[in-house]
This record gives sequence, C-alpha cells and structure tokens, in this order.
Amino acid sequence: MNEFEIIESYLSVKGAKRKDVLKGIGDDCALLKVPRGQRLAVSMDTLISGVHFLPDSNAADIAHKAVAVNLSDLAAAGAEPAWITLSLSLPEYNEIWLQDFNQGLKRIVEFFGVQLVGGDTCRGPLSITIQAHGFVPENVFLSRDTAQAGELICVTGEIGDAALGLLVAKNELNVPPAMASALLKKYQTPYPKIAAGIAIRGRATSAIDISDGLLADVNHISQQSGVGALLRWERVPLSQAAQSIDDEALRMRAALTGGDDYELCFTVNEDELEATKTALEMVGTDCIPIGRLTGKPGVRMLHHKEEIQLDELGYQHF
Amino acid sequence: MNEFEIIESYLSVKGAKRKDVLKGIGDDCALLKVPRGQRLAVSMDTLISGVHFLPDSNAADIAHKAVAVNLSDLAAAGAEPAWITLSLSLPEYNEIWLQDFNQGLKRIVEFFGVQLVGGDTCRGPLSITIQAHGFVPENVFLSRDTAQAGELICVTGEIGDAALGLLVAKNELNVPPAMASALLKKYQTPYPKIAAGIAIRGRATSAIDISDGLLADVNHISQQSGVGALLRWERVPLSQAAQSIDDEALRMRAALTGGDDYELCFTVNEDELEATKTALEMVGTDCIPIGRLTGKPGVRMLHHKEEIQLDELGYQHF
Repeated sequence: MNEFEIIESYLSVKGAKRKDVLKGIGDDCALLKVPRGQRLAVSMDTLISGVHFLPDSNAADIAHKAVAVNLSDLAAAGAEPAWITLSLSLPEYNEIWLQDFNQGLKRIVEFFGVQLVGGDTCRGPLSITIQAHGFVPENVFLSRDTAQAGELICVTGEIGDAALGLLVAKNELNVPPAMASALLKKYQTPYPKIAAGIAIRGRATSAIDISDGLLADVNHISQQSGVGALLRWERVPLSQAAQSIDDEALRMRAALTGGDDYELCFTVNEDELEATKTALEMVGTDCIPIGRLTGKPGVRMLHHKEEIQLDELGYQHF
Repeated sequence: MNEFEIIESYLSVKGAKRKDVLKGIGDDCALLKVPRGQRLAVSMDTLISGVHFLPDSNAADIAHKAVAVNLSDLAAAGAEPAWITLSLSLPEYNEIWLQDFNQGLKRIVEFFGVQLVGGDTCRGPLSITIQAHGFVPENVFLSRDTAQAGELICVTGEIGDAALGLLVAKNELNVPPAMASALLKKYQTPYPKIAAGIAIRGRATSAIDISDGLLADVNHISQQSGVGALLRWERVPLSQAAQSIDDEALRMRAALTGGDDYELCFTVNEDELEATKTALEMVGTDCIPIGRLTGKPGVRMLHHKEEIQLDELGYQHF
C-alpha cells in the first residue's frame, strides 16, 4: 500500500450502511439507487484551510463542518440526506490528524444516516471538498426564486453565534468560559437543520440556509425571486450569550453579516404560519418571523421603526 | 457582485441543456432526475497544480483534463455521462485564465453532452475537484472485482503516450516536433472512452480505466477479483511515436507504469472476444488482448517467453 492508500483506509468509515448503495468505495464509480418518485438533490462545497477554517482547527471539527455545510444545503432544499463523496487534500501524512478526522467524520455521517460512497485523497494544501446527495419529491423541492411579496420571512433559530464563535477562536472576543465554549461550538460544529427542511416542505414558499450572513442570504432569496425584503432587528433571535455582549454594533454585525450559522431562512404565506410553526415544533425547531417580503427591491432593516444604514455594518450591497 | 460571484459567472457555461436537470446552478442544491430503470454512477477526482498538472499548463487543457479523468471513471463503469459538479479553488482572480478555463470546460462538456449543474468557487491554491454523474442499468455496471481466472485481458488502444507526453512537457524527451505535439496532446487532453465502456456492457467481466499505469490498474482488477495476471509485453500496443523511441527501458516504463492514458482495460471470456471486438469496432475502438488472468496471485509479464523483472521498472508491488 502506498501512503494515499493508507489514508483511504483511514477514511473507510462508511457511516450508515444503506441499501440504496449498490457499490460503495473501492471501484471506479459508486453505484447508487434513487428511490422511485424521488428526485436527486446535490450540493458541493469546498473548505480550505485558512479560508474556511483556522489552520490549527481540530481535525474532527473540520470533518464535522465539511459535512455539515453540505448537508445544510440539502436542508435548505427540503431534501433528506443519503450519501456523500469526499475529496481530501493533505500536505503530509499525519496519523493522529487522520484518526481525529475519521472520528469527526464517522460521528456526523452516522448521526444523519448518511453513507460515504466514494472520493479521492491526494497530497496538496489542506482542503476538503464534499458533495452531499439527498432525495426530495420534485413538487416540494425548496428553491430561492419562488418567494412572493407579502410573505413572511422566518428563521429557525438564533443568529450570529457562529460569527462570535470565530472571534472567540481567534482570541478577539473576551467572554466568560462557559459562554466562549457555547459560541465556539456553534462555529465549529454546526448541526444542519435537516428535519426542519423536511418539516417545511410544501409550506415554505422559498428557503435558504444562513451561510453567507442573514442579510446576504435574505438578499439571495429576494433578488432571485424578484422581490424586496424588510426585516426588523428587534425580531432577529439572539442567544443569551450574544445578548450579554455589550457592544451592540458587534452583536448586530455578527447576526446580520457574520454567516456560518446554518439555520434555515424561509418564506411562508401568513395563512400558513401557524401550521408551519406546529410542523417545526414537532421536530424541536423554532419558527421566528423576522420580517416580510415587499415589492420594493433590496434588503432593508428597521430598528424600532428607524431604518438601519446597512452599509455601515460592512454589508456589501449587490 | 463580489470577486467570486464574478468567477461563478465565468463558469456559467452549462454545457448541454438536459431535460433531466430540473434545477441547475444558482440554488442551494441542483435537482436532478435519474431515468427510470437506471442507476446512478458517480465518481469524484481532484486535480492539484504541481501534483496532477504542471503549474504553467494551459487553463483550457486543465479544464479538459479535470473533466476527462472523471468521465473516464464513468467509462470504466460502463456508464453514460449526464452531469458534472465542479469546485474551483483559485489563488487570484485572473480574467484571461478564467476565459481559457471556461473555453476548455465548455468544449468537453458539450462534446460529451454533459451539463454542469453546480459547484463552488473559492480563493486558495489552484485545484479543481469534479464529480461526474452517469447512468447505467444495474445489471451491466462494470466493476473491478468480477473477473475470473482464464479470461483475456484487453485494452482499447495505445498505452504509454501520456507518460511520454509528460516528459515532452517537462523538456525531458527530445523528439521531432510533430511527434512531440502528438504525445503532448495525449497527455494534456485525453478523451475518455465513453462509447467503448457502453459497447462492452454485458460482455466484459470487469473493467478499469488506465490512470495509475497499466501494471497498477491490471493489479487493481486482479487483486480485487482474487486472481492473478500474466501479460505479454510484445502485445502491448504502442503508438508509432512511442515505437520510434530507441530507449526500450523508457518505452517500457512509460507503457507499464506511466499512467494517465485513460484507455480502458477490461477482461472478457474468450468466447465473447469476437463479439466484443465487433461491438468496439462499431464505436471506432480497438480491442487488443494483452494477456490472461491466472490463478496465481500477482501481476507478471513475459517478453518473448522470458519473465520481466517488474520491480526494475520502478513498479511498486502491493
């Protein structure tokens, strides 16, 4: 065995053993079966050391996050995850690192019932590309471009902790240890809202996961749907940790432009709000309206009826 | 638009417009339809600058090769290509480079009727990860682990030119210009044997594409099938360019351990040889028997009845 065959054997964690995997790792291709009546939803994301995670991050956390951000795209489409493929580029052979990576990988794929079915390993700068594959019936696939003016904009949970967690990781935020640890966890090991995505199928009129930052992601929905958005700052849910930070501008930047939260942001007709809340409650998820789609293009935000100047937050208009 | 949204707009070449793509680039996920009765074959490969291609390679050739090596895995499985996803990591924004990359990408995906349905762009060391997706009926999927002793080992074309082409690219092989250009082309822009893979469906008992080198790839088949292989050097097809090189040891190393040829190597029962030849002729492809599977583990090679010492070629036994 050469070095990279050894690495592949480390990654032979296959996760859940699924019946729809007719041929997994070890051949030129994996052979997979999409259930009748289901469509295939796929998403590919790359995480690069120093760009998407800090170079000294724990390998288990890197593996977790690489899988999580991809499953989060499935969640935003209302899809149920099935398989992942993984390409790992590693600068050198490091057994401890690989063991940790393997553990983090195993934990999250097993948690979500996903099987690793193929991929690649090679020598190069540390980076991980994952493609996630899931199933969704065609008529309930959630897109970004199907929202309409008048609909409510909702999120599934607290926003901004991941950005604050990154500051903690970089030693740029001084908070009590318990709080630091909670924020770090949100940044390092987010859990994609798979059950929530499935719960809002057929109810939400559009959805996205909050990865670029709340404003940017709401902007994706409103631009692609050809509408505008009016948000209310006081309705944006913040964690206790975030609320305890005195610097309001920092709290606001974290929540509105930070990203990496992996909560879902979706739109829903007002008539459907109660049913949607109930459906989300059943999977232990909140449904928090934070604004409304409008006919006027662009994303705006009110703070007690005053419009906030978003560019002052470092928000990049498109 | 930020820099990487600009890059994404460069990559908006979608290739063939396919009816089985219900939602392509631009959302959290692509939404795809696998035809009834077909299984999904997927393969993911990463090409890194300085590892898989020379850093000064032409961007159009890099795009071509990144797609080609992935489609070649589909060919080896007997699958018909449908979609690709692409993750491009770029150290800096370079418009000329992106235009070239885009052109090479467009050319090959259109040639094979493939649609680009999603992916990712980010800033980082130059590397390209592609996942190829194709269709194959379950019962004709070609694997590596289904060959049996006694069967013939065949290849679909000349072997070793890509390795010689790499030497030309590195100015390490001095040959006449016309020959240099032919060898370079085989190295830089290989054409995966898609039609051949489909033609041998149901006839070949196993298949692999020659990417690691003929000996290594035959070894994959024989190891995974639990058999051995006996090859005959004088039957291994070499191009006129390769034959004209005086240094026999070099010719042999290129053909046996070079890799990157992307011809198919497959096994077939002797009774099926003529029918397989005819099926391959109809898609303009050769069917050249170069040896036979045996009951004795390992890969051996005869040269006029003398066994060649493969380790002297730099061949790594497994």
